[in-house]
This record gives sequence, C-alpha cells and structure tokens, in this order.
Amino acid sequence: MTATSTTAIGTLAARLRTVLGTDRVISDRQELRTYECDGLAQYRVVPALVVFPHTAAECAAVVKACAAAGVPFVARGSGTGLSGGALPHADGVLIVTAQMRRILELAPADERAVVEPGVINLQVTRAATPAGYYYAPDPSSQQICSIGGNVAENSGGAHCLKYGFTTNHVTGVEIVTPDGDLVRLGGRAPDAPGYDLLGAFVGSEGTLGIATEVTVRLVRLPETVRTLLAAFDTTDAAGAATSAIIGAGVVPAAIEMMDALAIEAAEAAVHCDYPAGAGAVLIVELDGPAADVEAQFVAVERLCRDNGAFEIRIAADDAERALFWKGRKSAFAAVGRISPDYIVQDGVIPRTALPDVLRRIGEIAAEHGVRIANVFHAGDGNLHPLVLFDDAADGQAARAEAASGAILDLCIEYGGSITGEHGVGVDKAKHMPRMFTADDLDTMQLVRCAFDPRGLSNPGKVFPTPRLCGEVPGRHKGAHPLQEAGVAEVF
Amino acid sequence: MTATSTTAIGTLAARLRTVLGTDRVISDRQELRTYECDGLAQYRVVPALVVFPHTAAECAAVVKACAAAGVPFVARGSGTGLSGGALPHADGVLIVTAQMRRILELAPADERAVVEPGVINLQVTRAATPAGYYYAPDPSSQQICSIGGNVAENSGGAHCLKYGFTTNHVTGVEIVTPDGDLVRLGGRAPDAPGYDLLGAFVGSEGTLGIATEVTVRLVRLPETVRTLLAAFDTTDAAGAATSAIIGAGVVPAAIEMMDALAIEAAEAAVHCDYPAGAGAVLIVELDGPAADVEAQFVAVERLCRDNGAFEIRIAADDAERALFWKGRKSAFAAVGRISPDYIVQDGVIPRTALPDVLRRIGEIAAEHGVRIANVFHAGDGNLHPLVLFDDAADGQAARAEAASGAILDLCIEYGGSITGEHGVGVDKAKHMPRMFTADDLDTMQLVRCAFDPRGLSNPGKVFPTPRLCGEVPGRHKGAHPLQEAGVAEVF
Repeated sequence: MTATSTTAIGTLAARLRTVLGTDRVISDRQELRTYECDGLAQYRVVPALVVFPHTAAECAAVVKACAAAGVPFVARGSGTGLSGGALPHADGVLIVTAQMRRILELAPADERAVVEPGVINLQVTRAATPAGYYYAPDPSSQQICSIGGNVAENSGGAHCLKYGFTTNHVTGVEIVTPDGDLVRLGGRAPDAPGYDLLGAFVGSEGTLGIATEVTVRLVRLPETVRTLLAAFDTTDAAGAATSAIIGAGVVPAAIEMMDALAIEAAEAAVHCDYPAGAGAVLIVELDGPAADVEAQFVAVERLCRDNGAFEIRIAADDAERALFWKGRKSAFAAVGRISPDYIVQDGVIPRTALPDVLRRIGEIAAEHGVRIANVFHAGDGNLHPLVLFDDAADGQAARAEAASGAILDLCIEYGGSITGEHGVGVDKAKHMPRMFTADDLDTMQLVRCAFDPRGLSNPGKVFPTPRLCGEVPGRHKGAHPLQEAGVAEVF
Repeated sequence: MTATSTTAIGTLAARLRTVLGTDRVISDRQELRTYECDGLAQYRVVPALVVFPHTAAECAAVVKACAAAGVPFVARGSGTGLSGGALPHADGVLIVTAQMRRILELAPADERAVVEPGVINLQVTRAATPAGYYYAPDPSSQQICSIGGNVAENSGGAHCLKYGFTTNHVTGVEIVTPDGDLVRLGGRAPDAPGYDLLGAFVGSEGTLGIATEVTVRLVRLPETVRTLLAAFDTTDAAGAATSAIIGAGVVPAAIEMMDALAIEAAEAAVHCDYPAGAGAVLIVELDGPAADVEAQFVAVERLCRDNGAFEIRIAADDAERALFWKGRKSAFAAVGRISPDYIVQDGVIPRTALPDVLRRIGEIAAEHGVRIANVFHAGDGNLHPLVLFDDAADGQAARAEAASGAILDLCIEYGGSITGEHGVGVDKAKHMPRMFTADDLDTMQLVRCAFDPRGLSNPGKVFPTPRLCGEVPGRHKGAHPLQEAGVAEVF
C-alpha cells in the first residue's frame, strides 16, 4: 500500500467509525489477517479495513462512503466460499454481514421467510421446522454458511437435483447498489413484472451490490425420507443406474456418486464401512408422500440391481441414514488423509454423458500423472473431481493444475459448464473465455458497467480481465428515437 | 408519418428486400393492417413495414439494418399476447418470427429440446410425447402461441402452480441484441456461470432483443392424472379449501377457481353443466406417480368437504376431465355472452389473502357500479378478474377502467404484483410506478440502456415514460480503480 493510500484509508476509517462506532471497524494489521481468505485458502489478501454493519442502513452508509472515496469493497458472509468470491482487496474494505443475523419474518402459510444476509442457512430450516417447513438448498457447509453468501454464489447442494438452486428459492432481495442506494428486486410473489434483475443479482458474486435482506421460499417438510446405498463394480455401471432412474421418471431428492478413490479416502477418515470392493457407490434418497416414496423406492432398488449393483443397503432409521451420508459429506476433507494436497474442481455435464466423461477424466489423470477422486451430484451431472498432488514434489502442483483445467475443457466439450455450484470468484475468472465468446462476456460487462461503472464492487472477480467500462464495445450511443424530430433525421 | 420518414422507410425496405427477398417484406398499407394489434385489440397501430426472417442470421441482418437506420423494431410471434407487447410502432419494423418454426433437436434423455422461436407451444409437447416427455408451461393459448412469445412474456398457465413459469423451463437462448449481434445466454446445463442474463432476458418483453433459438426443458409425462370439480357456496369457502390443500403439503398440478358470475358465463357459452347454485367451483388436478396421486387425491377430496364443498365430481375418464376444463378454458370468451364488453385483468396476491381480496373486489364492483367475474389460478394467487361493461352506455368504460386499476392497487396493497402472466406490455406500463419506486425503475433502466441505449427494441413497452438514457440518474462515472495510480488520487 502506498503512503497516500494509507492516508486515504485512514480518512475513510475515521468516517466509518462515526457510522458504525469504533469497535465495528478493524484496521489493526494482525486482526485484519483473520479475514485474508475465504474457503479457498490458496488465495490470500489482507484487506485495508474490515467493517461489521448491523443494519441495511449501516451497510448502505458504508458503501456510500466507499463510493465517495473511490475505495473498492468486498462483501463477506461466513467466508466458506470455495471459489475465492470473498477474497479481500488489498486497498479495499471488507464488509462482513455476519452480524446481520435476524430472522425478520416467518410466514409458513405463504411459504416465505424474510431474513438478514448473515443468517446461517440451517437456522432458517431450524426456525421453520416447528411449523412443518424447511429451507431447501443445502450446501455441504449449511451449518455455517450464510444466506447472503448463498445468494451471492447461487449455492447448490445434494438436494438441488429435486429442489433447484438458491435462485429457485429466493423471491426477493433488498440490496445496496455499488452507489450505496437501497433498492428492492422481486418481492413475495413468485414473479415480478419488468426485468428479472433478482435473477441476475442471485449468483452475481458480489459484483452488482450487497444483499441486505432476503425473502426465501419455505418448502413443506416431506412426509417420508428413504435412503439407499448401492455398490457397483464400476462408475460406468453406477452412471447407467443414475440414467435409468431419471429415465424412469423418478426424481430423487439426491443421487450422489463416489468412486473407488473417494471411497478409500472416506474409509480412512470416518470408517463409514461402505461395501468392500466397490468401484463406485450411489447414495439415492427419495422424499415426499409415503405412498409415492414407497412405490418409487422399489423401482429405484430394482433399477440399481438391473444395472449391476452387487450390494444394496437400505437405511433402517435416521442413524443409518446419517451413516450413509457421513462418508459422502466428509469426502472432501477425507481426501487429506490420502494426499498431502488436492484441488476441488467443480463442473457440470449432461447426465447422459457421465460414463464417457468419467472415462476421459481417468485418461486425464493418467496423462498428467496425478490421481483424481470423484465425489459428485450424479443426478444433475455436477462433478466434483478431487485432483490429488504433493506440493513438495517437483512439478506435481503444475500437473495437478493442468489436469484440473483439462477437466473444465472436458465439461465444456460435452455442453456443460465450468462451475456447478461453487461459483467463478477469483479462481475461475481465467476460465470464463473457454466457455463464453468475447461477445458473450461483453454482454455481461454491459450489466456490470451499468451497475458499477468504476468496478468498486468486488473487483477482480468473475470476469477475466478488468477493463475500463468505456472500453466495452458499446451499443450505439444516441438519442431515443421517440425524442427525435423524425426517423429520417437519424440517417 | 412525415414525408422524410417515408423516404427513410423506403430506403430501409429496399435494403431488407435484398436480405429477405421481396415476398418477405410487406409495405402495402392494406396488408400491414393485418398486424395492427396482438391479442389486446384495444390498442392498434399499423407498422411501417412487416418482415419475415427464416433464420437467426436473417433476423440479425434485419435488426442490424434497423439499427443502422435508427428505425425502431418490434418482434411478434403468433400475436396472442394480452398486454400489447407486440403492438407495432408506427414508424418501425414489425419482425414476425412465426416462420422460424423448426424443432432443431429433441434430446429427451437429457430433458432438452432446441427450437426456433416461431414453434407453437403445443408442438413441442406433440414432438416429445412419443418419447414420454412434454413441455410443461401451458398458457390457455397453447394451441397457437409461440415459444418466442412465451419467452418474451414469461408466460404462465394453469399448471404453473406445480411446474413454474416459462423462465423455469428455458435453459438457454440465442438472441439478436438491439445492435444486431447474435449472442448466447445460458445453454443446456441447469445453470451457467456469470450473470443470469438468460433470466433477465426471459420476460423482458422484447426490450432487450429477439430470441432466435430457445433451449427448453422437457418434463416426463406423469403416470397418472386425476381431476375433481368441487362446488362451494362462497368464494370464501373455496379459498379456504385452496389454502387447506396447499397447507397439507399437497402441490396439485392445478387449482382453478371460478365464481358465480364466471360460472354463469361459462354455462351460457358452452353448457358445461357445473353444479347448480354454486357460489364458486374449484377444479383441482393432481398428476404424478399413481400411488402418490391416489393417496393425495383422497386427502384433497376430504379437505374440500371439510371446507364446505356441497358437491364433488371426480372425472372418470379423459372425456369427463375435458368437460371440467371446457368451462374453465372458455370462461374468458364466454363472458362475451353476458356482457357486450369486458376487461381481462391479471394480478397476483399471496394465496392466504384470497378471501380478503375477493371480498374487496366485490366492494370495488359495487363502488364503481360494474359487475366483476373471477376466473383464476387459485393455487398461486394469480387472479384474472373480468370487469364487465357496456361501451355504448355513458361512462361505463371509464368506470370499468377505474375498477380494473383499483384491483391492481389492491394486489399491491396485499404484497402481490400487477401482472401474474400476461406481462406489462403497453397496457400496464402506466401502472409500474404503483409497484416500483423511482429508484427501482431507474435500476431496470440501467439494464435497458446498457443493451439498447437508443431504445429501438420495442420502444414504449414495459416502462412508464420513455427517457433519454443519459437522463437515468447515473452511477458514478470514472476510471476503474485498478487502473488508477493509487486510491488516494480518487479523493
């Protein structure tokens, strides 16, 4: 940081302390280091300031002060994101919304709750459960991640196969624009007139502003949940079973797959006692009315057997169900037991391409001399390959990075996407041009520049190269034709 | 039209004839009159030219020529819209996409179809049915309305309660931007990185460009469909039954309500033989796996009786089911049998407010001295009040218009919306400030101006007052902070 910018930050800090009080503005270097990264620890940047607004008005005042000072700002919820979306800016303010954690309204009869952005995902479900409802999107981090972060990243989860992503469960937000204005997008109704700016905002990763209030859908708790674990010789067989289940018209709440290496890691970490010798396991969960679930569960069991399952276990109670999930949910961390370092990749392919793509991932592993474990949401083709490497071994990190990138190319080749639920953040910005043409990216920049022409709101995220908004190949400029004296004059 | 603009249009027509051939450019005044309105016939404007592109490239060339000439353009599919979204511009080009009607790809195993914008809604279902799939959004006009028009208006339908609107069933589009560039938004995957511009485009009513290719979700045909018709003394009782059904965790494919006046009209027109003396009827349809539907159907029947249904009929076969729906689907047109003129209103309220709002609509009718029939999607609170009047009677039209507007105010008062599925178009642009603050509307204008700074793409629709894009209260202008020498210089 330059001396002049230090002065500028000092001036801004003083202004923010008058807004928030001294104890909610951090400028001490040691304290600031706590916030140097989010869930993607490979990127670390110490912010210039960290602030903790308690209300929408305070959040707007902070952004207004940043805008007036020309200082960039980054919003952070619980800091669990996996793409570095909440990575701080070295010369900027980190706005932590974690203390905005009130549930403002519960209206189960209207299937709605209104919450502040710092409310923890699982707290919404806990608050709604007594009335018989829950909040459906369930990232693995749901015990700690915030609704505001979920909105920024359009978070998914195992049960998004049946229930959809965050964007399908948010009907309205109040946001602070990059200028510091409070604006409402959407509302309580399922759909609003005018542009669906709510949809554009959800998943915009903090680049269009900061959510200060979120209206979410509540979903009725299912009458029954049934879960089975099926073991197969190969991922091909497990992939074929997945396609057969969906093709039969069954939409399970979740279909999760783990391959042999992922099973090995989970066993080493949590002793989940999955069937010995499995080349792949599927966890299939059905929920809904009991009569429906029972009939479909029989069909799912048969389809697994028809496609080569050599062992099927059916959870007898919640405890056994929890055991099935324990292996799956611990898998990412468990990989640390069998490899010193690893990259968590996140991509999407059409479900029918699963067998092909898993074979090709095996080839990529062989070509690059790395091991790749696969743990993923099979039902919606959302892959999470874990690329294992040893950072201490010469060249391995580079080969792992190359293999990880090759997997994204593979996803694109099969008509999929470079991220299913972790977001672009700082991590995948460079991959955006693999998926989008320059025209596609320029079209997105039109919106970014409309909301945030100086790029103060979470700069350096999502888009591959920061550029002056004036550089975006423009739409024609000129007067509105209705304002012209006549059409001919425009010629 | 001025003499100079006539010359300009002549020059443009000549250019378009070189692109499309002479027979696909209409400039004859009599022929042009065919296109003077869409489904909302109270607004009529004869366009300067009508053109029929056959491909995306031709459509792009037409828009590019319009942009170069500064001439506004309006897209039109089948012309069935009910908010005047496809009303032509007197000095502009009407681009009819009805001849772009190829189904480009059917991929039922991936639950996707790729179609041109002129493809008729029901044709997608017809093409997918042999494979066991269908296209879920079902506007009443589905036998004639186009997918492109559905995308523009984010069309709904009776079964959107369970299945969602058009925006929930489109995963990708190719569009012509207002500059004439071809750009892709979204794709085949359920979600794409970057801004959800696809979501913003769907429902943008032609103001952000023209869809030239649409990738839609296909949904598995349900195993079973069961339909009942329940008669109640009052709309209060029918509303309470609706809330009880949803509150029990049942999500029917459709819950439709008609009040006494709507029943009277339907009887007069199609002799649907609904139960005599009913103050309201509900049509409740369940679909899905047989075991599920049977169990839930029993629950629905019981909940209707518990809430005062004095007669319940269960459709024994498809013929009887069709009879139940005949009264409902003919209701709008049927109102013509009991009133010389009528306004079809479209608004949304929270479902739990139904009894209150229907009572207030009754009061509005009394206050304004008009009759109001109610036919609507009760399950999602999407009202369609029909305000009856006689244009020949002094002052009745004005009173009907006032009553119709008062109903929209009522929807907003209860936290709902001024349109559920018909769109804003030219008809409701003036009502937008009742629902949105000036800041909200300015935020939408940021996007409009980013895509279409000269307002050439469907001008005069959606937004209440055309304004120069330079007049939109701006976000701060300036250089990107990353490009600055240091933060301090910005102070």
